[in-house]
Amino acid sequence: MDASAQRWKLTLAWDGAGFLGWQRQPQGLTIQQAVEDALSRILGGQAVTVTASGRTDTGVHAIAQIASFETTIRREPDAVVRGLNANLPQQIVCLHAERAPDGFDARRWTRRKLYRYRILSRPVRCPHRQGRVWHLRYRLDVAAMADAARRLMGSHDFSSFQASGCSAKHPDRTLESARVQQVDDEVHLEFVGNGFLRHQVRIMVGTLVDVGRGRATVSSVSTILTAADRTAAGQTAPAHGLWLVWVEVGDAPRRRQ
Amino acid sequence: MDASAQRWKLTLAWDGAGFLGWQRQPQGLTIQQAVEDALSRILGGQAVTVTASGRTDTGVHAIAQIASFETTIRREPDAVVRGLNANLPQQIVCLHAERAPDGFDARRWTRRKLYRYRILSRPVRCPHRQGRVWHLRYRLDVAAMADAARRLMGSHDFSSFQASGCSAKHPDRTLESARVQQVDDEVHLEFVGNGFLRHQVRIMVGTLVDVGRGRATVSSVSTILTAADRTAAGQTAPAHGLWLVWVEVGDAPRRRQ
Repeated sequence: MDASAQRWKLTLAWDGAGFLGWQRQPQGLTIQQAVEDALSRILGGQAVTVTASGRTDTGVHAIAQIASFETTIRREPDAVVRGLNANLPQQIVCLHAERAPDGFDARRWTRRKLYRYRILSRPVRCPHRQGRVWHLRYRLDVAAMADAARRLMGSHDFSSFQASGCSAKHPDRTLESARVQQVDDEVHLEFVGNGFLRHQVRIMVGTLVDVGRGRATVSSVSTILTAADRTAAGQTAPAHGLWLVWVEVGDAPRRRQ
Repeated sequence: MDASAQRWKLTLAWDGAGFLGWQRQPQGLTIQQAVEDALSRILGGQAVTVTASGRTDTGVHAIAQIASFETTIRREPDAVVRGLNANLPQQIVCLHAERAPDGFDARRWTRRKLYRYRILSRPVRCPHRQGRVWHLRYRLDVAAMADAARRLMGSHDFSSFQASGCSAKHPDRTLESARVQQVDDEVHLEFVGNGFLRHQVRIMVGTLVDVGRGRATVSSVSTILTAADRTAAGQTAPAHGLWLVWVEVGDAPRRRQ
């Protein structure tokens, strides 16, 4: 690390439609690339690498993602926010920027995060929430879904809820909370955890929807978890209903799981 | 009127981006044309004319507009809703359809309607509300705006708040209520009236924003109203922050003003 380099913490929000998720890809525009390009422009052309608390898939939205970077260029926090927002695409915004302690790394310092999955549960679609909710025309048994969700809480091998091709070193994760509630004409599924496998939230949602529409029993969720086999779980819910709501960072890197 | 014809009442919602407002235009797609085309397809090709409670401008959104039409073709209400939604563009939805009394006409039977104007008042934009709110970076004095809005209530000559080229027979309208309130990071301006002149709500909003940012006093609004001159009022707020929230229809045509 350059002795004169300073670390920064960014809070970012974005609409995921039109981006190939967080991580840089040769095939098209990603959030990471858009943020790094905008940062470079306001830092006199200096190249920067931006690290997020985790990767998000193509189409997933963020309300408050945390990211970190390092630069030797001196800037005031207000100037970073204004400069970024003047250079970012309209679908991405920097909500906040601040100097961070030495060694701050958004991925390694993250303690937990909250994902919310929004289902619009009613016969007709809503033109004002297109691309922001998963529209299901049938009724869902929210109480059964909430019961089933509680069975996913705790530390488990989540292999059944892991996308094939997931690069995680091991499939053990801790789901601190899993709530399902009706909010007006939407059903919200909220998951708090220290980390999630690839597609884990979306596969848990697809599985809980099977319970909600009566295609699977509440107790089947425990069986699926024990199976440690992706084919045991339900479908992967579409990305556009998934929202990263907040990220809690600690004051030091977290211990390796 | 064909003796065998039946009148219908529709409740419609739409995202106004991408449409040239309600009324049919030779230059491009309008809500009226999209709804009439979809209706015709589900009524065996029979041409229909759909009347809304009022016209809305290009870009204005609707949460629950009321519209009427007449047809000799017999259909169940559920089939009308399903058929319309299968044939409408994704940005328009039919929320409800029911048979209406003889002579029902959405324009002439409308008693009052509520328009809401949404201002996002904070330094940074929000990617999730793009095209749905008017983003103003400065702070607004909401109490002063609410005071000023109350001065617009009642029956007045609203010429100062009328777009040039408005085809209304006379400029007298009754504003039943005018509220301004902070709702999280948004300022909502809500207006209830029996009818509105062209751009009236948007010009009232532009004028109240001048008050909110300290460019005009609360009492100036009364002066502007008395002037009966469009150039006395503020700018026309952009269409994309305007929402038609609800329409109240009576059980007979309303008397001519």
